[in-house]
Amino acid sequence: MSGSTFGNLFRVTTWGESHGKALGAVIDGCPAGLPLTEADIQSYLDRRRPGQSSITTSRRESDQVEILSGVFEGRTTGTPISLTVPNTSQISRDYSEIAQCYRPGHADYGYDAKYGIRDYRGGGRSSGRETVGRVAAGAVACKILKELGIELCTYTRAIGPVEIDFSRFDPQAIRETRTGMPDRQADEAAVALLKEAMERLDSVGGVMECVVTHMPPGIGDPVFDKLDGNLARAIMSIGAVKAVEIGDGCQAARHFGSENNDPFCMEDGHIVKTSNHAGGILGGISDGSPILIRAHVKPTPSIFSPQQTVTAGGQETEIRIKGRHDPIIVPRALVVMECMTALTLVDALMANMPARLDSLRTFYEK
Amino acid sequence: MSGSTFGNLFRVTTWGESHGKALGAVIDGCPAGLPLTEADIQSYLDRRRPGQSSITTSRRESDQVEILSGVFEGRTTGTPISLTVPNTSQISRDYSEIAQCYRPGHADYGYDAKYGIRDYRGGGRSSGRETVGRVAAGAVACKILKELGIELCTYTRAIGPVEIDFSRFDPQAIRETRTGMPDRQADEAAVALLKEAMERLDSVGGVMECVVTHMPPGIGDPVFDKLDGNLARAIMSIGAVKAVEIGDGCQAARHFGSENNDPFCMEDGHIVKTSNHAGGILGGISDGSPILIRAHVKPTPSIFSPQQTVTAGGQETEIRIKGRHDPIIVPRALVVMECMTALTLVDALMANMPARLDSLRTFYEK
Amino acid sequence: MSGSTFGNLFRVTTWGESHGKALGAVIDGCPAGLPLTEADIQSYLDRRRPGQSSITTSRRESDQVEILSGVFEGRTTGTPISLTVPNTSQISRDYSEIAQCYRPGHADYGYDAKYGIRDYRGGGRSSGRETVGRVAAGAVACKILKELGIELCTYTRAIGPVEIDFSRFDPQAIRETRTGMPDRQADEAAVALLKEAMERLDSVGGVMECVVTHMPPGIGDPVFDKLDGNLARAIMSIGAVKAVEIGDGCQAARHFGSENNDPFCMEDGHIVKTSNHAGGILGGISDGSPILIRAHVKPTPSIFSPQQTVTAGGQETEIRIKGRHDPIIVPRALVVMECMTALTLVDALMANMPARLDSLRTFYEK
Amino acid sequence: MSGSTFGNLFRVTTWGESHGKALGAVIDGCPAGLPLTEADIQSYLDRRRPGQSSITTSRRESDQVEILSGVFEGRTTGTPISLTVPNTSQISRDYSEIAQCYRPGHADYGYDAKYGIRDYRGGGRSSGRETVGRVAAGAVACKILKELGIELCTYTRAIGPVEIDFSRFDPQAIRETRTGMPDRQADEAAVALLKEAMERLDSVGGVMECVVTHMPPGIGDPVFDKLDGNLARAIMSIGAVKAVEIGDGCQAARHFGSENNDPFCMEDGHIVKTSNHAGGILGGISDGSPILIRAHVKPTPSIFSPQQTVTAGGQETEIRIKGRHDPIIVPRALVVMECMTALTLVDALMANMPARLDSLRTFYEK
Repeated sequence: MSGSTFGNLFRVTTWGESHGKALGAVIDGCPAGLPLTEADIQSYLDRRRPGQSSITTSRRESDQVEILSGVFEGRTTGTPISLTVPNTSQISRDYSEIAQCYRPGHADYGYDAKYGIRDYRGGGRSSGRETVGRVAAGAVACKILKELGIELCTYTRAIGPVEIDFSRFDPQAIRETRTGMPDRQADEAAVALLKEAMERLDSVGGVMECVVTHMPPGIGDPVFDKLDGNLARAIMSIGAVKAVEIGDGCQAARHFGSENNDPFCMEDGHIVKTSNHAGGILGGISDGSPILIRAHVKPTPSIFSPQQTVTAGGQETEIRIKGRHDPIIVPRALVVMECMTALTLVDALMANMPARLDSLRTFYEK
Repeated sequence: MSGSTFGNLFRVTTWGESHGKALGAVIDGCPAGLPLTEADIQSYLDRRRPGQSSITTSRRESDQVEILSGVFEGRTTGTPISLTVPNTSQISRDYSEIAQCYRPGHADYGYDAKYGIRDYRGGGRSSGRETVGRVAAGAVACKILKELGIELCTYTRAIGPVEIDFSRFDPQAIRETRTGMPDRQADEAAVALLKEAMERLDSVGGVMECVVTHMPPGIGDPVFDKLDGNLARAIMSIGAVKAVEIGDGCQAARHFGSENNDPFCMEDGHIVKTSNHAGGILGGISDGSPILIRAHVKPTPSIFSPQQTVTAGGQETEIRIKGRHDPIIVPRALVVMECMTALTLVDALMANMPARLDSLRTFYEK
Repeated sequence: MSGSTFGNLFRVTTWGESHGKALGAVIDGCPAGLPLTEADIQSYLDRRRPGQSSITTSRRESDQVEILSGVFEGRTTGTPISLTVPNTSQISRDYSEIAQCYRPGHADYGYDAKYGIRDYRGGGRSSGRETVGRVAAGAVACKILKELGIELCTYTRAIGPVEIDFSRFDPQAIRETRTGMPDRQADEAAVALLKEAMERLDSVGGVMECVVTHMPPGIGDPVFDKLDGNLARAIMSIGAVKAVEIGDGCQAARHFGSENNDPFCMEDGHIVKTSNHAGGILGGISDGSPILIRAHVKPTPSIFSPQQTVTAGGQETEIRIKGRHDPIIVPRALVVMECMTALTLVDALMANMPARLDSLRTFYEK
Repeated sequence: MSGSTFGNLFRVTTWGESHGKALGAVIDGCPAGLPLTEADIQSYLDRRRPGQSSITTSRRESDQVEILSGVFEGRTTGTPISLTVPNTSQISRDYSEIAQCYRPGHADYGYDAKYGIRDYRGGGRSSGRETVGRVAAGAVACKILKELGIELCTYTRAIGPVEIDFSRFDPQAIRETRTGMPDRQADEAAVALLKEAMERLDSVGGVMECVVTHMPPGIGDPVFDKLDGNLARAIMSIGAVKAVEIGDGCQAARHFGSENNDPFCMEDGHIVKTSNHAGGILGGISDGSPILIRAHVKPTPSIFSPQQTVTAGGQETEIRIKGRHDPIIVPRALVVMECMTALTLVDALMANMPARLDSLRTFYEK
């Protein structure tokens, strides 16, 4: 069914398979007047590109984006923005094995059960390459947020058992380390762990965190379009994410109310909270504190050691996955998480505009 | 804006405030021919009713549902089903305090920031009473799932640090214990913890789990309407939920791929998995294994000890919350989680029907 | 399926059957801060009430509306507004005939073909009484438009072959004549025609027109949410409407381009058109001129003369419809047309707010 | 805002401007298993191509479609189908005039009022070229309808005052005449009229009709997603359409009930109607008779005679439109009407599948 559209007002439709001709996205509802060039988008695509270090796949995906519509003389016009990224480096090879049997940890079986047909080349639509469309569109959402003074920072919080130490938090390290960890010591430990896993033909999971600062209060629409609910859906829809937390998340369940409640106080004439266990969202509405979202990512399901599985015809068999696969998903998924967050926020900010009659009246009196 | 509608095909719109005249829901798109009486719905509402034990509020909420449309001669007709639950026991009292200042851990400030006006009586729309509409509608979804042979079981997995021991799992205990824990020993320990917290004018958090069995494979719509993504949104939209996990959830991030992947095998001619780390969903599509969803719930924000806060006018002050409040949200929220899960699943099952041309052809050849 | 919701941002869900317990609507997304009482809505419901003259049915439908949620201290709060209208005067009688056979010109057969079950009492959901929900919700939309200075005027343009003469256009006559014609001479001729038809146990069709003034330019969202497209859907969804025209409508097809194009000119510093063949909408976007919409309404299908039909079981038979039915739909449908127009316009005005980055920026700099 | 998506389950998003790099559409929710090649789509695009006769523009638009995703080994996979049509023959010329002033009868002013920026080259998104995306997607919908045995026939019913004579109805003539009229005599008269108008630098309007046969009864979702309402929106959203009729349409308003009601009778064991004034839709639900839709199209607004207008800066001026423009829109719009009808029907057929519990139960018992 039609699950490839995200958002109500800032609405993104993505398309494309791992080994098809191209991948892309159409953004409908982008406000007119935003300066936009391919370079704005390219920098985000570059952040999800593989082949950038010893711990990512050696596949080369140049992933050059082209804007086909919706921009005129360097500015968005309010009409749909069509973005395409040609698939240039997909290697033609023998897919007979994954064509006929189901890879553990992958969506192969589900797609067959649902559709009765499956583009098995590289996983088709269920491949991680699907996120190219999300990132291309999300880059535009990020640019809008920047125009509004809202900032996003996404980093690796843990790889396997290796967690960052916030006392060593180094924002510059996010883009400079191979793991996206803002802690160079943790990064080194994580890289060692990853190399060891690769040698064992295995893979590793991890945790990503996105922090949104300068978000205005009052955003999010109770009761089913709560900001945290919509963020949870957005982030959980990224392949391999198995848990989403807001603020203290799972820990909140172990706290007493007196610990978990964040007192309000005044600061420079503004209402703020003295702590942020809530992660910037109360009752589904932003409260002006930083929004904190955490995603737990399973290890890459494509591992090279032999695995037990079945064929589409119902025969038990053993599969050995070939090809080039990252031993961990997290570092390249950081930008995907940031983009999905941005898409959710822009949509919520737009949806909030007619929340008060006064706003409508002011708007149309102009 | 308009966030009170859930679902695309089985579409539920809820309405009502804590101290308004009534609460309710309209179900649009319920399949015709379902036998339905008020008793079917009442039994679910009774599960969320307070005043049932020493660890819930002594408020009496009779919460009698009435069906106003969409049912004829005991069966649904396919037209909208309007359900209302009158508010009968709201005590008129002095709300001047919460009218003027913001309760920590509550949505008061967010509502004011968003709408500039707020029905402060009992928290208005942001009250837990809002879930009356979810449960009334969810009961109908649960009945449809039963007709399809799909079963849901929801229980308390932890209260504060007290976790259930799966070796003592006793399904009957879920409805019989005050905590909803399927482990009578854990229940006793949890009740002791709760009583102690109540004495300290404090509250406690906890963890709920919902298990769905006999779910057919192939349900869920990539890439943004993935079943896990939509479940995450549904569950996170329940007030006080701060984290959602699917299957192994957070733990998956600490596993190696070789541990986390579930091998496929054959059983009685069907494709099954030998383990279920995935929690019944791969690539956003159900895989036929039980679906496992876990929700982490913060402690009740309404605590009776004094708290620091600010007034709407920007004055720092101290608030002492009055009234009757549960020391823990989890036991009464179990049925809400079950209902939100059911609403998500029914919608996904319906959306899946036209996924194949063959299905359309067979359907319209009849 | 779920077709009972109208609008994206100002979203209305209606429910109820002709002979059920009540009818109603839930408005989700109404801006906060609108002064609203039941009297605001009642005056619109009164306009669609029958039993008001010799040419409408003698049925008494008191149709008293009650607001159950979403309004606090006389103002909307931004939360869903639930409106109910109890069914008080439905006469219990023998429906065995229409239970078993299909009335020509009615939806009976379609409902059976679709749902396999049908609430046959008074036509159930397909009755004209369904519009009670539309009018209750539309009254709120009309109030918002008034706050923005936008005015709607809806009148009867023709009844059978009797058309109004614009040279005698008398706006006061709309509410004072039995037909809703703004021309007392035409009204008299129409009433004579209707009486004659009633004597022959027959019914008559007619034409309604709605004129919207002071609509700002720039409203409507190309290419599928064009303002004229959405108005056409809204108006065509009123039972018995068989054609919708915008501006010159059908006549435009017979004109040359040089006649049909409206030249632009300046007036008091504003861009206006020297004529309005377009009916206020160009390319799906309002152009600042009055919006002109015309609806052609078929004669009441419930006529008292015997008609040929079939039973649900497939037997040919003759049906004689009993009960109380208007000989013409138009006069009571005027307010329905006005309300559907208002719902469409409010939704479009809200959707337009984030069309420019500048608007977003100004809004969130506040 | 985001108005470029059509449909709920079979969901089409179009994009592209007249003089951009390309135009296209993404189809999301196409059932899996449909045989599909570019040739299937190309034949529909060829029907809207200009330059095919003396009465269409001499512009050459080769309009070659490419499928970029969603099809594997000749069949649809259920994933989004991305279709692109490069813009190859847009002539670079001086647009300074239409850049600065508003063409009468066009959307230029509306776009500026809405977005504050406008791609003026060839009308940008408001150009008739926008329909390339509709036709590309609609061709796929048409193919699905064919698989279900549903047929569409669209023809020119009138050009200016020249109407076809149904006694001479010749279906073959639709594709063979320059006007799309199924009456060779009327075609000749119409061509003479058009040539005369061209000499006078003027343009002509006309009427299109689409007839759908073998539509199953029971399709359409009351009360706001009625089949006729959704068709009206779909057809009215085609640029230049100013009126839409269903069945007898406007004429129904002049008939008595006894004339307009269609009696039911039995034929070969099926329920049918002895006449079809209703045009195949009663109460918003298909009744099994042919669906009849009529669209009234204004004359081409781009005429070559001088016209009075204003500049964006508010100066009155005279404009002389240059370029190549059809003297009539109808012949090339026939396929657009057919495609919009098909898109509406496929979506309604899919939405109808879960209307009965029995259908759900049968589907999931498989």
